[in-house]
Amino acid sequence: MVDKEISQAVIGRLPRYFRYLGELKDEGVERISSQELSELMKVTASQIRQDFNNFGGFGQQGYGYNVEYLYNEVGKILGLDHQYNFIIIGAGNLGKALGNYLNFERRGFLFKGMFDQKQELVGQMVRGVPVMSMDRLSDFIRENQIDIAVLTIPKTSAVGLVDELVESGIKAIWNFAHVDLNVPEGIQVENVHLSDSLMKLSYNISRYGEGKKD
Amino acid sequence: MVDKEISQAVIGRLPRYFRYLGELKDEGVERISSQELSELMKVTASQIRQDFNNFGGFGQQGYGYNVEYLYNEVGKILGLDHQYNFIIIGAGNLGKALGNYLNFERRGFLFKGMFDQKQELVGQMVRGVPVMSMDRLSDFIRENQIDIAVLTIPKTSAVGLVDELVESGIKAIWNFAHVDLNVPEGIQVENVHLSDSLMKLSYNISRYGEGKKD
Repeated sequence: MVDKEISQAVIGRLPRYFRYLGELKDEGVERISSQELSELMKVTASQIRQDFNNFGGFGQQGYGYNVEYLYNEVGKILGLDHQYNFIIIGAGNLGKALGNYLNFERRGFLFKGMFDQKQELVGQMVRGVPVMSMDRLSDFIRENQIDIAVLTIPKTSAVGLVDELVESGIKAIWNFAHVDLNVPEGIQVENVHLSDSLMKLSYNISRYGEGKKD
Repeated sequence: MVDKEISQAVIGRLPRYFRYLGELKDEGVERISSQELSELMKVTASQIRQDFNNFGGFGQQGYGYNVEYLYNEVGKILGLDHQYNFIIIGAGNLGKALGNYLNFERRGFLFKGMFDQKQELVGQMVRGVPVMSMDRLSDFIRENQIDIAVLTIPKTSAVGLVDELVESGIKAIWNFAHVDLNVPEGIQVENVHLSDSLMKLSYNISRYGEGKKD
């Protein structure tokens, strides 16, 4: 594990490196120069070298990077050599979509349980995992050493759940509710605000394309 | 419409301003200072003023900002005074979740059609909108002036669809496939790479919390 503080901007770029390196590895590519990686990923070679220098560099200048080594090292930095247990709170379509992503499992994220306040959903199975009643939540988190709670519920419910999740021992929240959550220090939150993403698209269309006035 | 080029970092922050201003407006707050907004949003007041200065400032220094005016102005900048027609390609759980978000409609994004290559899904209804066969795609886009294609399909299918979408007149792609798409200039793409987001969370847990070694 590296010791100095790495900016979240650099961290935010690591998964994309990991994705491209994984594809290169699957294609049987053994070595790649920062220049080739730069053309593939459409970022500057100097950006790539700067990003990697945060973690000691990885590469032999002139020989390029060893793809498999770099893939594994980036994976380790991303914490993918760990296993994490996660639950999904909210058994609607979005919750079910996330529960069904086999890719998460491959990366060490193990889907352990699903919760919903709607009694009619309790007992349904999503990829072999049962939907449980919300009053089981705290005990389940403690008994199964759950690391991550995925929230696919409306914002008011999400805000009201944070204290219970934290007290039960959750380390991180992957938040799809359309609200910023207040959590104590040491609890990690990653937001996926879908409406925000759609508005950014809307800005770019209306600025660079043509929208229809209503 | 503003004329100078605004950085995507600023644009990326606008939806969050819009969200907080909408909540303040709904609570009946009429004016807010950059200092109060700063405390609420946990960004510096100087960041807020700098961001707003990109669009001419909006505010009367000392009196604070008029919440409703600012909300409306930010909405206009985001292109939310336009209407956009969108289709969803991929009628799985994620596609259905997105089709069911009523909030998108409220913002001017009109859900017009859904497509899937699985014949057994064709004819299903999602919020009053039928799932159609992929061979109807091009004609439907042209006949219904579709602006945005939402891709909730695997990456190989997504890459193969881009040319057809662009030729049929799509202006923008909201891409949930785990791949970066190559599009011609003038076509807007906004990516939601869920695995990337989860890896960022994983990094922060393993760096700042404790994961279990496997």
